[in-house]
Amino acid sequence: MNPCSSVLLTDLYQLTMLQAYVEQEMMETAVFELFVRRLPPHRNFLMAAGLEQVLNFLEQRRVSQTELAWLESTGRFHSTLLRYLENLRFTGDVQAIPEGTIFFPHEPMIRIVAPLPQAQLLETRLMNLLNFQTMIASKAARSVLVAGGQPLIDFGLRRAHGAEAGLFAARASYLAGFAGTATVLAGMEYDIPIYGTMAHSFVQAHRDEATAFEHFALAQPENVVLLLDTYDTEAAAHKVVDLAPTLQQQGILVKGVRLDSGDLADHARKVRRILDEGGLPQAQILASGNLDEYQLQRLVAGGAPIDSFAVGTAMTTSADAPSLDCAYKLQEYAGRPCRKRSEGKATWPGRKQVYRQYGQDGRFDHDVVTTLDDRQPGEPLLQPIMAGGRRLLPARTLTESRQRAAAQLALLPDSLRSLEGGRPYDVQIAHSLQELARTVDRFVP
Amino acid sequence: MNPCSSVLLTDLYQLTMLQAYVEQEMMETAVFELFVRRLPPHRNFLMAAGLEQVLNFLEQRRVSQTELAWLESTGRFHSTLLRYLENLRFTGDVQAIPEGTIFFPHEPMIRIVAPLPQAQLLETRLMNLLNFQTMIASKAARSVLVAGGQPLIDFGLRRAHGAEAGLFAARASYLAGFAGTATVLAGMEYDIPIYGTMAHSFVQAHRDEATAFEHFALAQPENVVLLLDTYDTEAAAHKVVDLAPTLQQQGILVKGVRLDSGDLADHARKVRRILDEGGLPQAQILASGNLDEYQLQRLVAGGAPIDSFAVGTAMTTSADAPSLDCAYKLQEYAGRPCRKRSEGKATWPGRKQVYRQYGQDGRFDHDVVTTLDDRQPGEPLLQPIMAGGRRLLPARTLTESRQRAAAQLALLPDSLRSLEGGRPYDVQIAHSLQELARTVDRFVP
Repeated sequence: MNPCSSVLLTDLYQLTMLQAYVEQEMMETAVFELFVRRLPPHRNFLMAAGLEQVLNFLEQRRVSQTELAWLESTGRFHSTLLRYLENLRFTGDVQAIPEGTIFFPHEPMIRIVAPLPQAQLLETRLMNLLNFQTMIASKAARSVLVAGGQPLIDFGLRRAHGAEAGLFAARASYLAGFAGTATVLAGMEYDIPIYGTMAHSFVQAHRDEATAFEHFALAQPENVVLLLDTYDTEAAAHKVVDLAPTLQQQGILVKGVRLDSGDLADHARKVRRILDEGGLPQAQILASGNLDEYQLQRLVAGGAPIDSFAVGTAMTTSADAPSLDCAYKLQEYAGRPCRKRSEGKATWPGRKQVYRQYGQDGRFDHDVVTTLDDRQPGEPLLQPIMAGGRRLLPARTLTESRQRAAAQLALLPDSLRSLEGGRPYDVQIAHSLQELARTVDRFVP
Repeated sequence: MNPCSSVLLTDLYQLTMLQAYVEQEMMETAVFELFVRRLPPHRNFLMAAGLEQVLNFLEQRRVSQTELAWLESTGRFHSTLLRYLENLRFTGDVQAIPEGTIFFPHEPMIRIVAPLPQAQLLETRLMNLLNFQTMIASKAARSVLVAGGQPLIDFGLRRAHGAEAGLFAARASYLAGFAGTATVLAGMEYDIPIYGTMAHSFVQAHRDEATAFEHFALAQPENVVLLLDTYDTEAAAHKVVDLAPTLQQQGILVKGVRLDSGDLADHARKVRRILDEGGLPQAQILASGNLDEYQLQRLVAGGAPIDSFAVGTAMTTSADAPSLDCAYKLQEYAGRPCRKRSEGKATWPGRKQVYRQYGQDGRFDHDVVTTLDDRQPGEPLLQPIMAGGRRLLPARTLTESRQRAAAQLALLPDSLRSLEGGRPYDVQIAHSLQELARTVDRFVP
């Protein structure tokens, strides 16, 4: 089973609603927008990611004959709906904020304009895709901001929430500025640089640590990075120094060592000294082990002689904020703008655009969210992506999105760059949008 | 791409280690065990889940020719490794704690006994599978414990971390005692009951709320559950009452209503009264909206007239503890027990069994972790599952595992049933295991 493009990867209510839409012939144009209601704790900004997977889903979404037969067997669905699903293809328009762009609450990440049933049915998977990658890119960008240019590597697959989460976390963190991932399949699928060393079990499987190091070096002569903390970190560093001349005779250089437990700054200093005094100044130190952006900041600010960092669980699960309060809401149907007014969850109606205005220092100053027809100064963030179910431009490469992310981070005001919450970024709701909301409210019972 | 059974769904270091193992002909039997180092915050116990997916992975894991060609193109791997991967099949033994069983830190969930490269290569995906479902089942069980028998439904797919997380969360929460899920594909794949109502967009797409309710009832006459909070919850309840006679003339009963925002207890009381006074005592109330086990407990303990609850993001992301501190460690190689002694991460060596001892009240009293040859009184938790790469028994059905989970929860001591941390459960490390650790340490440099 490859569930990722199945029409059935959705909430049941989408299908029950579709049955009513199809029966009532409610096929007119619907406008849905996906946005985040508020920033999660510990976040000053969001970084858009996942759009490419959404577009793939729009192009590939299908229902199989097995799935249709199963739907029929539940006795819940009429043949009109089953025939509709069988022939379903996306024929709508998409506008979106490009991947790698920094954005804020109330700003639509994506707008779907399509016949109501088509647009409705997208809700669950669209949220599933954009919530996760955006959350990961937004978290990973925090590590990038504090790492001071040191390479960061995603080590998170083992505690990612399933296979797709591991692959998408590798992609989203690379987009946000990580140097690569340990996940081999992500390397193949997304052309992301892959990194890897050895596990403690490799050392344990050998009768002694030095033999383990030698065997590893012979097997990976171009990539000799040796794990030091299976038994005693500094003792292992001395074994690396002792082994180095033998390896050198065979043309093999020790590229680096990895620390994975204990006080990483303290071990790094001691190991750096042992390596330098042992004639291995070129050997780099990679640190791993429950790292997050706060520990990265502490290690980097403290001047620990660590050359690169592997970040796993905290990033790949976005541990301090494992979801975004995002919503995919109907903003217009059959030419009539609408909005939800549920307590604490009211939304702004209609089709919207976001204009970003820059300060004299060239950095982000504030954003204005307004109706689509209300042209404002500044850079419009939503761009046309698909029309009539077809892409308007070739797929943006991950490298291009990663470059955009880096450029965006460089334009972030200082107040938003710190790990602590500062003054919130100014997102203004334009007069014309407020006026539209009042008009809509007058017409809803 | 269906990544779920790919050999490349792994960390690069598994492949670099395998290259050394294959070249050094280190093919002797390795024993790995997966366990959790410590309970996550806010948890008193863990519930085993995900074993069935592990067994499927062991049976189905493959490398495709495309993947082999890509591996070769990286220039990192020798042909000996590529040939090894091409012919890789799992031929080992598996012992494990059955799904639905409650267990605790330091207790091996699963043991893999296989030639070293086979067993090593499993690490990443085994952890990925067992970490997630066990985490979700352990979280979902907390909601089950406080819900007082009211049905709970998984609504989490949209904020699950990708497709597989959504499907596995539906499975693991059903295993732990949820009544079903909104995720259609999980219903098909795992034969889990599916539930669904309507979205706010359905109401918004209609010119008035009453028409929306009527259209929905006509499309789903057997499943009329109407969402009340798009504009004003109590006003909507009155509309349901007004509509009911018209529906009844067509033989359609209002099965229930759904509340999704605001003070759920207060709305439930008001809506219950409106429905009762309006002649709809049979209409049930379903509550949803950022629920977790703490809010469930408050609503149930407060006597809110809510008949069932939908739980989404908090459960599906295990928001307060989005990972387990689990590890997959080499415990023996070529007949020689071993262990890792890294700071704060030392492990117990050798093949182990866990014995559960029951108190006079029939409930769990304490567990003993010991070496495999040290028979202790009590119930042994690890059972033989596979031998020589083949299952010893037919796959346990999800229903059977769900029954086991319910039986286990019934045997949980009161101190572990509350949402707050109580006295930790007593897990004893037997003398023979401590002795083995000392012996191992004497022989490791």
